[in-house]
Order: sequence, then structure tokens, then C-alpha cells
Amino acid sequence: MTLDAVDTPALVVDRDVLRANVEAMAALARDAGVALRPHAKTHKLPQVARMQLDAGAAGLTVAKLGEAEVFADAGVTDLLIAYPLVGELKLARLVALARRLASEPGGCIAVAVDAVETATGISDAVAAAGVEVGVRVEVDTGMHRLGLEPASAALVELARAVAALPGLRFEGVMTHEGQAYQAASEAELERAAADACEAMVASAAAIRAAGVDCPVVSMGSTATARFAAGHPGVTEIRPGTYVFNDRSQVAHGSATAGDLAATVLATVVSRPSAGVACVDAGAKALTSDRMIVPGADGDFGAVAPSGWPVARASEEHGLVALPAGADVAVGTRVAIAPNHICPVVNLFDAVTVVERGHVVDRWPVAARGRMT
Amino acid sequence: MTLDAVDTPALVVDRDVLRANVEAMAALARDAGVALRPHAKTHKLPQVARMQLDAGAAGLTVAKLGEAEVFADAGVTDLLIAYPLVGELKLARLVALARRLASEPGGCIAVAVDAVETATGISDAVAAAGVEVGVRVEVDTGMHRLGLEPASAALVELARAVAALPGLRFEGVMTHEGQAYQAASEAELERAAADACEAMVASAAAIRAAGVDCPVVSMGSTATARFAAGHPGVTEIRPGTYVFNDRSQVAHGSATAGDLAATVLATVVSRPSAGVACVDAGAKALTSDRMIVPGADGDFGAVAPSGWPVARASEEHGLVALPAGADVAVGTRVAIAPNHICPVVNLFDAVTVVERGHVVDRWPVAARGRMT
Repeated sequence: MTLDAVDTPALVVDRDVLRANVEAMAALARDAGVALRPHAKTHKLPQVARMQLDAGAAGLTVAKLGEAEVFADAGVTDLLIAYPLVGELKLARLVALARRLASEPGGCIAVAVDAVETATGISDAVAAAGVEVGVRVEVDTGMHRLGLEPASAALVELARAVAALPGLRFEGVMTHEGQAYQAASEAELERAAADACEAMVASAAAIRAAGVDCPVVSMGSTATARFAAGHPGVTEIRPGTYVFNDRSQVAHGSATAGDLAATVLATVVSRPSAGVACVDAGAKALTSDRMIVPGADGDFGAVAPSGWPVARASEEHGLVALPAGADVAVGTRVAIAPNHICPVVNLFDAVTVVERGHVVDRWPVAARGRMT
Repeated sequence: MTLDAVDTPALVVDRDVLRANVEAMAALARDAGVALRPHAKTHKLPQVARMQLDAGAAGLTVAKLGEAEVFADAGVTDLLIAYPLVGELKLARLVALARRLASEPGGCIAVAVDAVETATGISDAVAAAGVEVGVRVEVDTGMHRLGLEPASAALVELARAVAALPGLRFEGVMTHEGQAYQAASEAELERAAADACEAMVASAAAIRAAGVDCPVVSMGSTATARFAAGHPGVTEIRPGTYVFNDRSQVAHGSATAGDLAATVLATVVSRPSAGVACVDAGAKALTSDRMIVPGADGDFGAVAPSGWPVARASEEHGLVALPAGADVAVGTRVAIAPNHICPVVNLFDAVTVVERGHVVDRWPVAARGRMT
């Protein structure tokens, strides 16, 4: 069937573009000799996880235990939860998941920590249960969200403490160099990535100098992976958005318009004035996320391929600004490229999968809404 | 059980506060002699719909057909879809819903239109099926989203066309005076509400002067309902947010901090620096919606009752700015008051219902994600 039979708004994924994106990032990692551990929070789809693993990914990264549980249910056996796990309820679930994955060939789970008290909590829980989890220490390379200062005494101390705690297997260091998304040019982006790489390599060196083995140096978002993968000493990249891409990635030069695999199909429901078309995709379909690229307009997405911006959005209404002379009738269907695809996927119960304009599948967003 | 047994992040609803909010708005409408048709997009919960109807609401407003279908499944028989319905797929569902509600005692459905082509499309579909739907014509009182100019020739012409189209029952005029949320003071808010009321009463008068009966004059959001309900000629109010309220409503004087019925329970997962606590509620739990009140800070919500702002948010991380001297340990649980509660509810699969601190129920968010 064609897309005409799909009601709007709908999140539409082009499987050919998706496959090409998955292959390209796998090739980039393979050619550079680094591990690829994609962040699955972007897609939340077991079908895409399977593509990534088949293309050579070492395992998956997730943000939440609930996501890890969904992907374990789908047969993924090597998972990193890139988030500090705190509290009895979560630690009990972590123990159950670690036990379950340990029963699989090659199965393992790792978590991120940025404080000794968090590591101690995890150690107490897993050691009491007789299971083991990998631990990566989070480094703050400039995003100033979580993590310890690169190559600092506190970082070395935390690594040493983790290595000594029962039930924990210290794997190395990780960062999310989100500050790179503030870059205003390709040159600035490359510089931000290189700075983060150097901070990470120095962090690993400081830990090794203290006598602690530190095999993993993990970083690399979709925008920075192409720089980080080739940096000597970096061992793993964890990009997420690349499977679908979005307008922010195009603005950062990490993707072209032809690499956009996911768009929101919408219908023009009103023409309230000459320069405005109202579509049935507002913030409930596109989120309120603007592009974080410096200098970008404050829109909520743009019609593809025309580039007409969704200039205003309320929950169910997207107001598209039409250029002079443009006309579009009520009932017309348009594809909207989102600014930030990850939270958009989280709003849809399912994605509609197309190939060459034909609907070939419907994938429930299995890890949608897994917040805990 | 207590909230300690609930994992975070969780959306927690205080049933006593919810009930008081529902009662207060019902009393306001009753005392003013206007109908109350609450917008259910805020709560998306059949349990809250039942409370509203039991308190005297005439019916419900929804934004989407999918929401209407969920509430019809839950036994609500009088529904207004405040959205232009376009396209064969939606019109077929509208016909099915109209037929189903017509079989209920007093059952009826109405829709909003702002263009004659939309009205014609609906008329063709429902007349062919031998069913009837109510129609309200949307007026733009200043939000400049959808709707026709108040008391304009085009508005009168559309009302006349609707009244003449087979299968349509012209009910009157409606608006969402969202522009009032730009008011910087209570006096400005009252003035914006009064202006919108006058425009609506004039619109109805113009339609009546053309010989078309116009029983319904419908408007009134949570912020403006207290002004609109008492305005002579207004017949119905459609507030939504009042059931839970949020920080935007408190800023507008439509609610106090004690009227906040829904908060996001979160856990401090890291203390990355002296003035910052990281909680496990980021934009995936709070949305990226800032307060639209002029002059408000650009935060993503605030810890209640301290008021500490969630100054930054990524998808899974909320970075709370702590005042000098404040301390909060990893593992501490905090309640966060959202800026805009409607899209927050849409992110959660279920709400946790408490009374006097005890968990008394869990309500699946039945109409969550119903985008089509």
C-alpha cells in the first residue's frame, strides 16, 4: 500500500536510507578500528538494533534501565546503560538484568558512574547477588552535565575505587561531548571534537599511570564520530542520531538532506491566511525542541524538501510559513523534517516503514516511554 | 503503599487537589450560568473525565478523533472535537463515531471548522452516511492560529453555509483566546479576556443578524475562564489545564501553588558541582516547554516547594540550580512542578494517584499518544 492509506500525523521511516546510514557508520568505525556501540535512545526499535548489530556494532548504549530491559527482551546481550543508577528499586532491576545477560553467551552489562557513592551502591547490590557489572567512569569534557574533570585526581581516585569494589569490572572512561553541538562551523566542530578526544586520552593515561587498567576510551556522537573514530587512543564511538538524522545534523555537516531517514507525515488542515498553512503536526508530534546550532532560526522543523519552516507550534497545530507566491491546498500531505529526532520518536507508538514510497512494515516503538 | 515504592521519574497526581480543582471550575460555571465543556487533552484520563461530568460538565472537548474514540469507549457521549477534520480516513472515523454516539441517550458529537471546504467535506461524508454532526465555526480573536476574523462577512458567510449544508447542525461560534497567555499582569489578562469576549459576542450577533440561529458562544481557557464565564452572551467555557494546573497558571494567577495537582517525582542521581543537582527527569519527562509568561525565566520546571529551577535539561538529565548553601544528597527524591502540564501527561504511560501521601491508584493515560 502507499502512504495515502496512512493517517496523519505519522512518523515515516525510509528503510533504504536507514540501512545506508547504519552501514556508513559501521564502515566508519570498522575503517578506524574502533568499536561501535550505538545509542539506541534515538530509535528505541529492536528492528534497528538488529540492523546495527548485524552491521558490526559491538553492543548497544541505552539511557535507561527500562530501555535495556526492552532490548534484552529483543535478544541484545551486550548493553551499556550510560546513566548513573541510584536507589533500591533500580539496583534490584540491574541485578536481575545482569544475572539474565550473564546466562547468555558473551552477555554482559555495564553502567556509567560519576561518584564513588553511586559505585558503592551498585557494588553492594551486585556483590550481594553474586553478579558482576562493568563500570565506566564518566568524564566531563566540557558539556558540564555529569562527569569528573579530565585527568583529574578525583577521576583517577574514582577509577581506582571502582576497580577495587567487589562485583564491579572497571572498563574505562566515557564522555558525551555535547558541547560540540554549540560549534558554529565545521572547523569549530572539529576543534571541539579534538579537544574532547585529547581530554579523554589524557584521562585514560592518568588512570593507567596509577596502575589501573583502562581498556575503554568511549565517546563520539553523530556529529563528532567522524573526528573521534580516527583519534589515536579512542577505542569506541557511541553515536545515536545517525540512523535517522535530523535537521540539526544536517546543519552540523554530519548528514545531508538525502540522509534524513525519518520524517513526520502531516496534512494541511487549514489555510488561515495567505502566507500560512496549518498542518496537523504540532509540538505533540515534533516536540518543542529548536535547533541548537548557533544562529539557527527558532522553528519547530521544516517541510521537506521545500524547507518551509514550521514557524509556530502549539500541541496539535503546526503553522508553516509559506514564501511569497507559494500555495498549498487543504488536504495536501507534506513531510516534515524534525529538528531533533530522538524525542520525536518517543512521541509515536509506532513508525511506518516505507521503501520507494510503499509501506512495507509498521514497527511498534518498543522502548518508547521507558523512563525508569 | 507510599511513594517510596514508586520508581522515578513518575507523574504523581494528588486526588484531593484534583477533586477540589474540578469542583471549583464546575462551581464557577454553575454560578455564572454557563456550560462547562472541559478540554480533556490536558488529562487524557477517563477517570478525570468522569469526575468532570459528575461535577456538572455538559460534555468534553478533545483535540483529536483518537482522543474522542478513547473517551467514547469510556462512556462519554457528548464530545466536541475542536479541530478541523480533513481527509477520507478521518471522515470515515468521524462518521462511525457520530453513528455510535447517536445510539446513546443524548449522545452527540460536534466539530470545529474554519473554512467552507472543510465543512463541505464533512457534510458530504456524514450526509451520505445518514448521520448528523454539530458544527462550530472557529473565530480568531487574536491568537492568529486558526479561525476567521470576528464579526466579519466571511465568518457570517461560513456560518450560513454550514447551516445550509446537509448533515450539519450549526451550533455557534468558538475560539481559543490563547493570546491572553501573553499578558504580563492580571489587569492585562482581564483586558485580553474581555476583548475576546466582546469579539465573540459580536460574532454571534452578526450571524444572528443574518438570520442564522447561533446558540453557542464558546471560549474560555483556564487563565481566562474566570473572566469569560461572567461575560454577558458567553454561553460555554472550555478550560483544560485547571484539573492539574502548572507553573504557567500560577504565574497567571489562575491557580496557587496549593492547586498544583500533578508533579513529576524525580531522584537526585548526581551532584556534579556545588550548585547543581542532576535529577532523572529531563526533557523526556518535563518536555522542552518553557513558561510563556512574559519575563519568566527559561527553565524547564521547578522543584516544589523550594522553587529551585531545572535550569538545564537534556532528554534524561535535569540540572537543578541550587541556591548558595543548599545541599541535597544523591538519592533524595524531589517533586518537580512542570511549566506546561498537558504535554507532560502525554509522555507518561500512567499516572500514580496519591491521597495524603499514600498511593491509592494507578491510571493508564488512556488517550496518550492519540495523534490522529
